[in-house]
Amino acid sequence: MAAAVTLRHMSMMIDRAHCEALDTADPLRHCRERFRLPPDLLYLDGNSLGALPRDTPARLAACVEQEWGEGLIRSWNSAGWVDAPQRVGDKLGRLIGAAAGETLIADSTSVNLYKLLAMALALRPQRSVILADSGDFPTDQYIAQGLIAQLGGRHQLRRLPPDAAVEDYEAALDERVAVLMLSHVNYRSGALQPMRRLNAKAHAAGALTLWDLAHSAGAVPLSLAADDTDFAVGCGYKYLNGGPGAPAFLYIAQRWQGQASSPLTGWFGHARPFAFESDYRPAVGITQALCGTPAILGLTALEAGLDTYAGVDIAALRAKSVALGELFLRLVAERLAGHGFGCASPADAQARGSQISLRHAQAWSICQALIAAGVIGDFRAPDVLRFGFTPLYVGYADIWDAVDRLQAIMTSGEWRDPRYAAPARVT
Amino acid sequence: MAAAVTLRHMSMMIDRAHCEALDTADPLRHCRERFRLPPDLLYLDGNSLGALPRDTPARLAACVEQEWGEGLIRSWNSAGWVDAPQRVGDKLGRLIGAAAGETLIADSTSVNLYKLLAMALALRPQRSVILADSGDFPTDQYIAQGLIAQLGGRHQLRRLPPDAAVEDYEAALDERVAVLMLSHVNYRSGALQPMRRLNAKAHAAGALTLWDLAHSAGAVPLSLAADDTDFAVGCGYKYLNGGPGAPAFLYIAQRWQGQASSPLTGWFGHARPFAFESDYRPAVGITQALCGTPAILGLTALEAGLDTYAGVDIAALRAKSVALGELFLRLVAERLAGHGFGCASPADAQARGSQISLRHAQAWSICQALIAAGVIGDFRAPDVLRFGFTPLYVGYADIWDAVDRLQAIMTSGEWRDPRYAAPARVT
Repeated sequence: MAAAVTLRHMSMMIDRAHCEALDTADPLRHCRERFRLPPDLLYLDGNSLGALPRDTPARLAACVEQEWGEGLIRSWNSAGWVDAPQRVGDKLGRLIGAAAGETLIADSTSVNLYKLLAMALALRPQRSVILADSGDFPTDQYIAQGLIAQLGGRHQLRRLPPDAAVEDYEAALDERVAVLMLSHVNYRSGALQPMRRLNAKAHAAGALTLWDLAHSAGAVPLSLAADDTDFAVGCGYKYLNGGPGAPAFLYIAQRWQGQASSPLTGWFGHARPFAFESDYRPAVGITQALCGTPAILGLTALEAGLDTYAGVDIAALRAKSVALGELFLRLVAERLAGHGFGCASPADAQARGSQISLRHAQAWSICQALIAAGVIGDFRAPDVLRFGFTPLYVGYADIWDAVDRLQAIMTSGEWRDPRYAAPARVT
Repeated sequence: MAAAVTLRHMSMMIDRAHCEALDTADPLRHCRERFRLPPDLLYLDGNSLGALPRDTPARLAACVEQEWGEGLIRSWNSAGWVDAPQRVGDKLGRLIGAAAGETLIADSTSVNLYKLLAMALALRPQRSVILADSGDFPTDQYIAQGLIAQLGGRHQLRRLPPDAAVEDYEAALDERVAVLMLSHVNYRSGALQPMRRLNAKAHAAGALTLWDLAHSAGAVPLSLAADDTDFAVGCGYKYLNGGPGAPAFLYIAQRWQGQASSPLTGWFGHARPFAFESDYRPAVGITQALCGTPAILGLTALEAGLDTYAGVDIAALRAKSVALGELFLRLVAERLAGHGFGCASPADAQARGSQISLRHAQAWSICQALIAAGVIGDFRAPDVLRFGFTPLYVGYADIWDAVDRLQAIMTSGEWRDPRYAAPARVT
């Protein structure tokens, strides 16, 4: 955090040499070598799809050519495929503060949310409300709506507006709330919810918590077990670098395992899947949350992605993430004043994840011009430009260069080029 | 089929030279070059995990290194990731007699079964029975049990025994049956159900049909649309050669699309997923059955697997499959008489899929000894040895060699070696 504070209070303008000096002093600088990144591309979208780890191609090739090609069916046992969901789950669990046996790799985030939301509702049969944030990533809300319809409409999705304060959630946690379902880091703004505090309030009100960690895992420190989280889900393809459509993860606190069943009672969640019994009997522990046959290629790539965190101190990662964000905001303030940008992210670095979202009326066109200039961020309707800072491979000079290119686009009016015009209806 | 008939009625013993001659005359012989198979291994388990296609490593490497590594987030559009589930689905659809827009690649077979079973039940709200086969692959029955529990217990899973005749199903199709849920080819015995006939009977009784094609797709001719099938699911990793845990597929007849919704209402099934609307609105057509972010690595490998069928005439494939099975049965009869084997598969080749299952009291030990001798089949409790014949890469001399090794194991008593002793409780 020292770097950020220093930057904020410096009176002189920052130059590239200063950023290069920060890179030289960066204790995580060596981690960049763990990735393959196209030369001259500034990739600030690792919060959407993480970059390719250097080791992934060879590890995937070994899985395909040796394990599949030569081991064939035998590799379910000899290559450890059969327990990969639990083994890789535990590796991921160490990044999120889970105890062994609390984390599993399976399915997609949406499917996992469905499982855990159904389990949480079953654990609170006298209650009917799912309390959520209408500004959270839509799939979570959609899944809740689908589940509610399937359960006969007895439940209700109550959503607070995106600008609701933590106190508003606390006030809304009444005796009807079965589950508080929230993103830990909001996908649009990067706003960070106080997980421990909300867990405590939810529990005091008799509710359970279900957190979406898609924009948290691998980006911010997490202590799920210590913070008393009940359930959580998250993506493998963002900060965890598992590749496009990587299998997702789920977390079930030890105390709830065996208390409720996933409604997706597939054979890999059976107590004895290879005994081919006629009736379902749940496996003990986290394994019950498996459903179908695990996606081995995806699991292999995800494990290689998780290994990019080997030896990385999460506190140092967070410190760099904050410093990158602060540097970005400072440079935007210095060099883009008068160009119509606002900030959609919390001003307090401690209240943000690892991204900064800017607002601009021409966000779509500016995003396209930036991409053409080799700066990859992304656009979120109607007016948000998101920039994700993955501390493992983004450096301080990258931030300088990205803002430099943005300034050039704004100053030259390059973004007005018809090539970058927004379509009539952006989907 | 000519080869099989000829073999059956030949009076002389078959020798290896005869099998080699059949290979030389095989119109599908060139397809073996589309796969990488370990030398000297006889792989008769493609019904469990298909072999590695020759082109898969390079195609997966291109997806990983170029599309992911260089294209990064842009590849969702530029590399066509975003519509891969529908595009690869249509490619698969051509193998199963589906019309364009009726097949989708998504999730696992179990998850897809859950979606379609829920949709089918919703389309028959006055009915309560799921009619099934207690000998079908357990995950289908487990998923039905989990769904029934979640729907409040109003429904009932009625299962006929594994030896039920097609007439028994016809008799059981009364006015309470909402869905007839069956495997087209039984995973244990290879027995083939008459899909068209049962579809017609089910429809006449007011019920819908949901077929599991895990052991059919790529192995036997299928005409889902012409046969009036309502719903179907299946695996990508068996005859379709998509790799371990490949994404699965689902089929929804055009007439039911838009009539019922998948309960797994994730963002990729939304009408406008990238508009990030707050409320769920189903996409038009088959796309509504998508849930979370598609598994791109798995889809890429599955597409390469499907391409091993390029230019293959399914009738020729079926003819070779039948001939391989008949040859195997004939050789077993000639060379293993008196060793205690029985046949668990239908005697009529037209009533079987692409596998033969033998019964033997020491099946576990024999299976282990066979694997040690380089013949990969598999064991299914309590007494079944399964041998799958994938016509794309299994030849007639392979069948001769496999039976030859089996005979050697039985004659020498090699299977009695303590290394191959069954564990106390086989899971």
